[in-house]
Amino acid sequence: MAARPITFLSDYGYDDEFAGVCRAVIARIAPDAAVIDLTHGIGRHAIERGAQILANALPYAPAGVHLAVVDPGVGSPRRALAVRAATEDRILVGPDNGLLWPAIERLGGAVEAVDVSLSPFRLEPISATFHGRDVFAPVAAHLSRGASLGDAGEQLDPDSLVRLEAPEPVIGTDRVLAHVVSLDGFGNATLDLSDRQLPETGLRLGRKLAIEAGGAVREAVFTLTFADVPDGGLILYTNSYGSLAIALNRGDAASDLGLEPGTEVVLRPTG
Amino acid sequence: MAARPITFLSDYGYDDEFAGVCRAVIARIAPDAAVIDLTHGIGRHAIERGAQILANALPYAPAGVHLAVVDPGVGSPRRALAVRAATEDRILVGPDNGLLWPAIERLGGAVEAVDVSLSPFRLEPISATFHGRDVFAPVAAHLSRGASLGDAGEQLDPDSLVRLEAPEPVIGTDRVLAHVVSLDGFGNATLDLSDRQLPETGLRLGRKLAIEAGGAVREAVFTLTFADVPDGGLILYTNSYGSLAIALNRGDAASDLGLEPGTEVVLRPTG
Amino acid sequence: MAARPITFLSDYGYDDEFAGVCRAVIARIAPDAAVIDLTHGIGRHAIERGAQILANALPYAPAGVHLAVVDPGVGSPRRALAVRAATEDRILVGPDNGLLWPAIERLGGAVEAVDVSLSPFRLEPISATFHGRDVFAPVAAHLSRGASLGDAGEQLDPDSLVRLEAPEPVIGTDRVLAHVVSLDGFGNATLDLSDRQLPETGLRLGRKLAIEAGGAVREAVFTLTFADVPDGGLILYTNSYGSLAIALNRGDAASDLGLEPGTEVVLRPTG
Repeated sequence: MAARPITFLSDYGYDDEFAGVCRAVIARIAPDAAVIDLTHGIGRHAIERGAQILANALPYAPAGVHLAVVDPGVGSPRRALAVRAATEDRILVGPDNGLLWPAIERLGGAVEAVDVSLSPFRLEPISATFHGRDVFAPVAAHLSRGASLGDAGEQLDPDSLVRLEAPEPVIGTDRVLAHVVSLDGFGNATLDLSDRQLPETGLRLGRKLAIEAGGAVREAVFTLTFADVPDGGLILYTNSYGSLAIALNRGDAASDLGLEPGTEVVLRPTG
Repeated sequence: MAARPITFLSDYGYDDEFAGVCRAVIARIAPDAAVIDLTHGIGRHAIERGAQILANALPYAPAGVHLAVVDPGVGSPRRALAVRAATEDRILVGPDNGLLWPAIERLGGAVEAVDVSLSPFRLEPISATFHGRDVFAPVAAHLSRGASLGDAGEQLDPDSLVRLEAPEPVIGTDRVLAHVVSLDGFGNATLDLSDRQLPETGLRLGRKLAIEAGGAVREAVFTLTFADVPDGGLILYTNSYGSLAIALNRGDAASDLGLEPGTEVVLRPTG
Repeated sequence: MAARPITFLSDYGYDDEFAGVCRAVIARIAPDAAVIDLTHGIGRHAIERGAQILANALPYAPAGVHLAVVDPGVGSPRRALAVRAATEDRILVGPDNGLLWPAIERLGGAVEAVDVSLSPFRLEPISATFHGRDVFAPVAAHLSRGASLGDAGEQLDPDSLVRLEAPEPVIGTDRVLAHVVSLDGFGNATLDLSDRQLPETGLRLGRKLAIEAGGAVREAVFTLTFADVPDGGLILYTNSYGSLAIALNRGDAASDLGLEPGTEVVLRPTG
């Protein structure tokens, strides 16, 4: 059986060899497995951001093994997971700190889960600080080659997986209170609002709105894309994953409006 | 037929998952295609820099499909292209904003071009802001697997492709007016002068010259390589793509001389 | 014969296309070779850091060809190497400036070495400044396909390879003088002390110690991992490669203590 593809996301960054060594470990165990780096540029220990990106990205990736490591609790007793999702026999591998949860939800929930902390597939001697190399990568590689979850670790209750807690948006027809979930490298800010929630609001495509954040109020337009406003124009738009987002055409909305993950933003239809 | 290799260049950077998701899309459609990342570190919206790097890099890459995305006009009516170059059946895929043009010229010109904006290979629903994922990557992947250009989009006149405009250097025997085309991560500055233009100038290997930029004048040597001068020595040299360039041995010429893309530089032979 | 895997480490960074073009060159010559990027984020010209990372990473990588380029002397008469190590028929390719030496030592020493400066596998015309593309990558690709060292260059005495010189730690039972070898992206500082040297010191797991650096003295604990102390706690620990290291839990020890490569650090058991 050919090895299944492995996607790989982490907060290891690019200055160090951490992600590269994990790929080396995979190549020793599963030389035929295609490894697709989603990104290693997740902010250090930014579990929420990593979780959101993983959930958004996986539907575009081939079904296979999905390795994700943002692991501030490495070396603590937090569990190490391999989880089978309900759709397409996808298997997620990573720490039990909520990182995997939004992706698992989007893939229909968890149907089987094991704790791989003491997996027979781990490298020995296991380090206290680099479980990406010693636990997660080798487990992912063996699963890619067809090993069963039962061989990889100890069964655990899929309902016991750690989930992320986040404030909820408050949606009204003349006022929506939302939160910045994440910023991308262009300074565009994703909100915790989906385009499926739009009908409950007074926000309409093509109309003006006021955006309140950090005490300031700014005029914006709810538009389809950047190119619909002049350079420097502020827009609300539906981003490429179906979430509402704020951007400045050819500018940086995050620095201009002082937006950070968690910032409260109020949207009021005005036009 | 085996999938053709795909090279991939963008301004998506490494902090976000954009390039990784494009690779994921390719892996779903063409799992056997080798994807060679040239770089995703092109400055945001830096079409000229992306175009220069693409043109310099492609002659070193295997013939195949060459995906390039630096696309400030995404969502506007700019066309999305797949273009067959005259040599080696190479196919370039990207926005019609000049990004592909210098590479196409270097590869002998365009012999066939299609607009893939509404390609049957695109992902649905198509987003307004992420055509790398929804248009360019899936089109490149299908072309890699052997689809014809005609299947990928609507024929258009290859002579109608958008080209980049740039100032020309002014070449004399006692004075050459050139422009900085780009800076690399080491602070070396590439000029819009080729070593093929050197005979028209008074610049000779091993001789001294004055370099004027931003009102200051600096002494330099036209030398073969960094190691020919002491640490901190300023040199003119022929870079690895045959362009003249300015460097400071074990230093950063760009910050030291205040060079940026577009900066006018005057070179005068003095020795 | 299938192509052997190629690992690749450099200081080319990610903003430029240098590493990507080397991969393109490899793909033309050895299209079937798996290329595993260890990192291209080594600090510019940081030979010692590159050497340490290479030596640490290679034992985790599949045996094959190991390409490494941190090459401040490019264009000077420094030799260009391909070296066979004593274990697993591993072949290292890179400049003769000490970069390869610690890895070669860890792999049992050099059993055969050639100078590939004028290798028949090099690209012509050879540039003065980009030997990664013109010499090292094509040599590595041909070796990956099974070419012999003798075909790649001129035999040289393996005992003549350039080695790195570094200060030695001074180890006592009430005082250990060590040096910072490198910093990672999290600000953790690796020292030139191995856990095998611990028995000669008074440092014991679970005990307190004083860390002196840059004139300041700080209290720390010798612990197994970050999670053993509160946020902001300073620890001495054995890192994932068996070296002693200094870290601040969820903080940046390097900036907090003013540590840089080469900084002298004194460790005194206090508890």
